Amino acid sequence: MSIHPFDPLTPSEIIETTNILKKSWPADKLFFRAISLAEPPKKAMVVFLDDEQCSTGSGARPPRQARVQVFIEKVLHEIIVDLDQQAVASTKELHGRHSYIDTDFMKQVGDACLADEQVQREIESLKLPEGATVVVEPWAYATDGVKDMKERWTMGWFYMRLSDHPEANYYAYPLDICAEVSPDLKVTSVYRLPSAAGDKMHTRQAEFDERKIVDAEKSEYHPDLLTSHRTTTKPYHISQPEGPSFSTAGNLITWEKWTMRIGFNYRECMTLHDVRYDGRSLFYRLSLAEMFVPYADPRAPYPRKAAFDLGNDGAGVNANNLGLGCDCLGHIRYFDGWLTTAAGEPLRMPNVVCCHEIDDGILWKHTNFRTGNAVVTRSRVLVLQTIITVSNYEYLFLFYFQQDASLFYEVRATGIMSTAPINIGDTVPYGTIVAPGTLAPYHQHLFCLRIDPAIGGHANSLVVEESHAMAFEEEEDASGEDHNPFGVGYTTTSQVIEKETGLDLDFHTNRVFKIVNEAKKNTITGTPIGFKLLPCYSQLLLAHPTSYHARRSEYAAHAVWVTRHDDEELFPAGRHTMQSLGGEGIASWIAARRHDEARSSVRNQDIVMWHTFGSTHNPRIEDWPVMPCEKMIVGLKPVNFFEGNPALDVAVSTQERNCSVLINGDK
Amino acid sequence: MSIHPFDPLTPSEIIETTNILKKSWPADKLFFRAISLAEPPKKAMVVFLDDEQCSTGSGARPPRQARVQVFIEKVLHEIIVDLDQQAVASTKELHGRHSYIDTDFMKQVGDACLADEQVQREIESLKLPEGATVVVEPWAYATDGVKDMKERWTMGWFYMRLSDHPEANYYAYPLDICAEVSPDLKVTSVYRLPSAAGDKMHTRQAEFDERKIVDAEKSEYHPDLLTSHRTTTKPYHISQPEGPSFSTAGNLITWEKWTMRIGFNYRECMTLHDVRYDGRSLFYRLSLAEMFVPYADPRAPYPRKAAFDLGNDGAGVNANNLGLGCDCLGHIRYFDGWLTTAAGEPLRMPNVVCCHEIDDGILWKHTNFRTGNAVVTRSRVLVLQTIITVSNYEYLFLFYFQQDASLFYEVRATGIMSTAPINIGDTVPYGTIVAPGTLAPYHQHLFCLRIDPAIGGHANSLVVEESHAMAFEEEEDASGEDHNPFGVGYTTTSQVIEKETGLDLDFHTNRVFKIVNEAKKNTITGTPIGFKLLPCYSQLLLAHPTSYHARRSEYAAHAVWVTRHDDEELFPAGRHTMQSLGGEGIASWIAARRHDEARSSVRNQDIVMWHTFGSTHNPRIEDWPVMPCEKMIVGLKPVNFFEGNPALDVAVSTQERNCSVLINGDK
Repeated sequence: MSIHPFDPLTPSEIIETTNILKKSWPADKLFFRAISLAEPPKKAMVVFLDDEQCSTGSGARPPRQARVQVFIEKVLHEIIVDLDQQAVASTKELHGRHSYIDTDFMKQVGDACLADEQVQREIESLKLPEGATVVVEPWAYATDGVKDMKERWTMGWFYMRLSDHPEANYYAYPLDICAEVSPDLKVTSVYRLPSAAGDKMHTRQAEFDERKIVDAEKSEYHPDLLTSHRTTTKPYHISQPEGPSFSTAGNLITWEKWTMRIGFNYRECMTLHDVRYDGRSLFYRLSLAEMFVPYADPRAPYPRKAAFDLGNDGAGVNANNLGLGCDCLGHIRYFDGWLTTAAGEPLRMPNVVCCHEIDDGILWKHTNFRTGNAVVTRSRVLVLQTIITVSNYEYLFLFYFQQDASLFYEVRATGIMSTAPINIGDTVPYGTIVAPGTLAPYHQHLFCLRIDPAIGGHANSLVVEESHAMAFEEEEDASGEDHNPFGVGYTTTSQVIEKETGLDLDFHTNRVFKIVNEAKKNTITGTPIGFKLLPCYSQLLLAHPTSYHARRSEYAAHAVWVTRHDDEELFPAGRHTMQSLGGEGIASWIAARRHDEARSSVRNQDIVMWHTFGSTHNPRIEDWPVMPCEKMIVGLKPVNFFEGNPALDVAVSTQERNCSVLINGDK
Repeated sequence: MSIHPFDPLTPSEIIETTNILKKSWPADKLFFRAISLAEPPKKAMVVFLDDEQCSTGSGARPPRQARVQVFIEKVLHEIIVDLDQQAVASTKELHGRHSYIDTDFMKQVGDACLADEQVQREIESLKLPEGATVVVEPWAYATDGVKDMKERWTMGWFYMRLSDHPEANYYAYPLDICAEVSPDLKVTSVYRLPSAAGDKMHTRQAEFDERKIVDAEKSEYHPDLLTSHRTTTKPYHISQPEGPSFSTAGNLITWEKWTMRIGFNYRECMTLHDVRYDGRSLFYRLSLAEMFVPYADPRAPYPRKAAFDLGNDGAGVNANNLGLGCDCLGHIRYFDGWLTTAAGEPLRMPNVVCCHEIDDGILWKHTNFRTGNAVVTRSRVLVLQTIITVSNYEYLFLFYFQQDASLFYEVRATGIMSTAPINIGDTVPYGTIVAPGTLAPYHQHLFCLRIDPAIGGHANSLVVEESHAMAFEEEEDASGEDHNPFGVGYTTTSQVIEKETGLDLDFHTNRVFKIVNEAKKNTITGTPIGFKLLPCYSQLLLAHPTSYHARRSEYAAHAVWVTRHDDEELFPAGRHTMQSLGGEGIASWIAARRHDEARSSVRNQDIVMWHTFGSTHNPRIEDWPVMPCEKMIVGLKPVNFFEGNPALDVAVSTQERNCSVLINGDK
């Protein structure tokens, strides 16, 4: 099978890329951070896709290129390699920028912390209980304006494992020390963390308070360490005697009139391309573009806890190897991803995406009350799931495709909350005490879904529709426009957005965001074909607009953004988030070209819609020691795009086909 | 098995009740509308339940009573019958009130319309196509202030069935005539409906426009009438080799630490009682309490289209007989309901509730990045589903219980939209043209979920919590309270509601509504035990506050209400919604006792929380001719109620247990 332009780089292409670089820099030490597909320019790709749809075969393939992030003698570079030409196409030194987190380096940070004499003295002064093992959790240093951001700083947060068992939950015992580590792996400061209610910042604490120690049932999540095991949940099997309803050809998935191409890269993990229904173009690209997790504790050094889990960590880098029958159920097709080792070799990431079907209850039903006859169809849904682990936390990212041409994007947050120490008996107003001496600080999770639409083509507009009551006139008014004699009438207003901007949600007016193709009218409704966003109503960033947090996560200031498409604008907090200073995100792009009519107009243009959503996570104790999934869901639904219910032809649900089992009476 | 006080009346109790009434009114003609359980007074019931929990067996059973709605010689009565005493306990004549819709009467209304000479003349003037059958859809008359509301008025809306097939979709051809029918089945007016863009009200139209006729694929939903049948959806079976994880004993359901009693009545359909987790009291009663569907077309006579589907129609009366393998999948236990015939005989409503389990993906997961070991559990969910058909529309009502002690209530709207005629080429601003000449008018669906909490007991409070940024001080402020040197801090505010009131949602401040028990503190967090509402963000009623619509649906003015419990206050638009004039709903209850401290205080009291939610349904053509389910979801989650994740003990997900099937490579 030939490589499709949207296909991620193959292992042999990664090797090719590495070889080209090694030839170009024969004398230099190369330390590879990432080799991934430089996605084809959209202009060229649109031509290719149009030809592909028409099966003319006349379309020129866009150049096959790799985007490489590599240290050349310790200087970070971004290099574009042209695989067709077998040559370096462009080279850029990334001065003052940082690459994403280097796991090996982080391990060394942890070791450096434990080896440091001052740290050892502090640990000793804690007088930890017998058998305790100190564990260091290195975190990227969130910009707080204190250190020189051109250097790579790391924070080491300390925990204690009480059991010998390697799966013991050390987050249950946060210690009140914290180390700041320099780029050359030296501990430059050791802080004692604020642990008393009145503490403003790092203050000296007493030794470890043994009253903090609780029994395993309250702090452990690993079944080996628990004595209580629920046995009431009976087995539940899904069988698909004729196999799944989807088929795959390489990275192309075909299912129930949908087609899409699945991509993968170290940063975004799963991406979707050229999403169509019944052959009709809907979305050029769909991806989670960024996420930001700032913590609410204002006391130093906690403001340094704020993670860009895509930009800093890489969702692809941290993707789980999904286990058959564990992470998904039924008939499952897995997709692998490929990363790159430090030496530039391909690194297989097995089973990073699972593809399977679920039954989602009823799709549509009607009973004719005159005949008593019911017609009911069941909703089959295609699920594409990926899961990442970022230190303590887990995120599940799921696309759900429905037979009625709607699709949903779900995030589930689970895993273990990042904890901090607190003195027994004290409370603070920015965290929940989940165990004696253990604080789960308030924090936010702010995601940004990038929606690159192609609603019947690439010239699209964003329409904001609202529903408003008509004026209540007991008598017909002069104009005759607002005749509403009983006070029951309402109508919709529609505003087409003309320029790039950020917008907010308003359920009070039933504000609906639609991506439409103004040039293509629905022949029946007479209105432009479109898709609407079903947003996830969420509080936006609470950090002050002038704070580093806000300046670095510009997308978190509005729930919906619309921009002109730009091949380089994939990441709404900027391409380089690690220790970023701000001013490189979506608001900055818009501000920079706001006076340039040709570049800021978004009406009947190739546009991108961005949706910021998430949760203000003020922990419950029920989220401890491991958190039941917290779901956040976003949807996209056709609105006057088709000529009727696209799922009208779905077969009627019958017992003959579904083979359910009747349970008679009590048991 | 003995009857539990929450059990619905048994068939023999219905017969008993009827016999008692017949004995009491031996000479009168009795026309029964409803015989259902008069639920025990909460005061008595609480004592009974406490005793039941302690298994002391000492609790006196509350009196077993039936509530009867009956016409005695054409006068509507509400009668309480004491089944223990075998006697009538109370009798009330319901002057100026109407019972819920009488299906037999509605059939007669349809016949009367078709038999009426003026109607026949109007139909003739339409010059309908050969083979057309006229169909009348009688609707309860929504109060518009025009007719005398003490009389029972009915509206007949006209449609045309083009095919001989009894399942042909007549809603595809709305005719522009409409009849008003008197209580004695006389057509008192025939209107021609506004059908041109400029029409203010009923105007005379031309004959039927044959350009409105479309082919079956665009107007039919019944598979017999369609030629396109999707064959790509492969079978999907659920097998539970050890049976389901739930068990039932009469109306008591036990599942994964949950217990609850299921009830049924003609009005609310499914109700839930005494909901507990791990033996701990959570909710005394959960039910959908009302729903209102007003239409937005302001032109007479359309304001008469506005349905209270519980109060006017009865969700129990219109409950579907759920089909095995059609409406639910897996191992299914059905519950029957019992209604009453006009003669007072028990009428079995088979399979009105289905109880089954679903797999809902991952419940919680964590991978220890130091060992690479993952622990993942799957989320099993108990589903209780009921479906009603109200003329053209279907509603699915589902309770979902989760292993982590959270529960969700979902409404799915499906079925066929109520249509109106429109001239070809015209448009109006309060509807979508879904077929040539067929308008799907804008409308709202406003549901009210009644949540009668018992969070650790019956003295509960409502707390409104919000998350707010701390003031950004570069330097510590004088008080030292708001130390926020980096501008990242936020805290929560909590307000305990003191008096009965209506409240609104605000996601901008992450406003959270919690029901708490102030007297019971969580021993670890130190805060009151509670459950929080996960609301469904929805636009509220658009009709003018002084309109009949608004006065009749008081609950639709706010998203959250809190009231003191009152045994008689189950229905937030009032007990008698049929042709009601307003002023009998939740706002009126609150207003009437607002100066009575003893009755309006809601802090540490037996309170009820009400959540109004729904959709402003501005139809898409994709909702035509039958609508894919539109989901609305509300949740209730423990918040510092337990001492940790209640689902911590759920068994780890393994392939050995789940038996999934790996699909290798492309197919």
